Amino acid sequence: MVRFLVLYQRPTDVAAFDHHYYDVHVPLAKKLPGLRGYTVSRNPSVVRGPEPYYLIAELEWDDIASLQRDFASPLGQDIARDVDTLAELCPGIHSTIYELHAL
Amino acid sequence: MVRFLVLYQRPTDVAAFDHHYYDVHVPLAKKLPGLRGYTVSRNPSVVRGPEPYYLIAELEWDDIASLQRDFASPLGQDIARDVDTLAELCPGIHSTIYELHAL
Repeated sequence: MVRFLVLYQRPTDVAAFDHHYYDVHVPLAKKLPGLRGYTVSRNPSVVRGPEPYYLIAELEWDDIASLQRDFASPLGQDIARDVDTLAELCPGIHSTIYELHAL
Repeated sequence: MVRFLVLYQRPTDVAAFDHHYYDVHVPLAKKLPGLRGYTVSRNPSVVRGPEPYYLIAELEWDDIASLQRDFASPLGQDIARDVDTLAELCPGIHSTIYELHAL
């Protein structure tokens, strides 16, 4: 399993970010054929470190090949451009892809 | 489902951190009775943002009550103190608890 973790700091315009995220971005991302799971954080609290991220989104694919196929598709490229729109409302976005290793 | 996400920046002493993390910390944490899943990142790559976190650990509980029960137990307190040892080897630790909301 491969996870795409996206950490969003507090947006400059929370209402505009939420509207764009849930009404535009999520419906686009959910069309990706290889997507196996998509969760967002609720009620975050920090244990160590500065203030909690505003939103933590986690998207999963079976493997890196299927993620790369989705990211390279025309839809994937539309979604990447849509993240540029989100980044205008939320300058602090940190996203990482990694394989999940169960302990 | 509740997730405890721990983001570790690159340790000052990678070998000592890895040794302590996998040989001391993980075996302790796996004894927590309410723990339902524990994964760590492999082969991370950054999509947006600075360099990837050295390690991303994700631990799961059924709900916030069972997580809090485990954290408050004597074992949970031992583990919190053990994180202080990890923090000496890795000053940049950011950890957050949140509920998972499936989209």
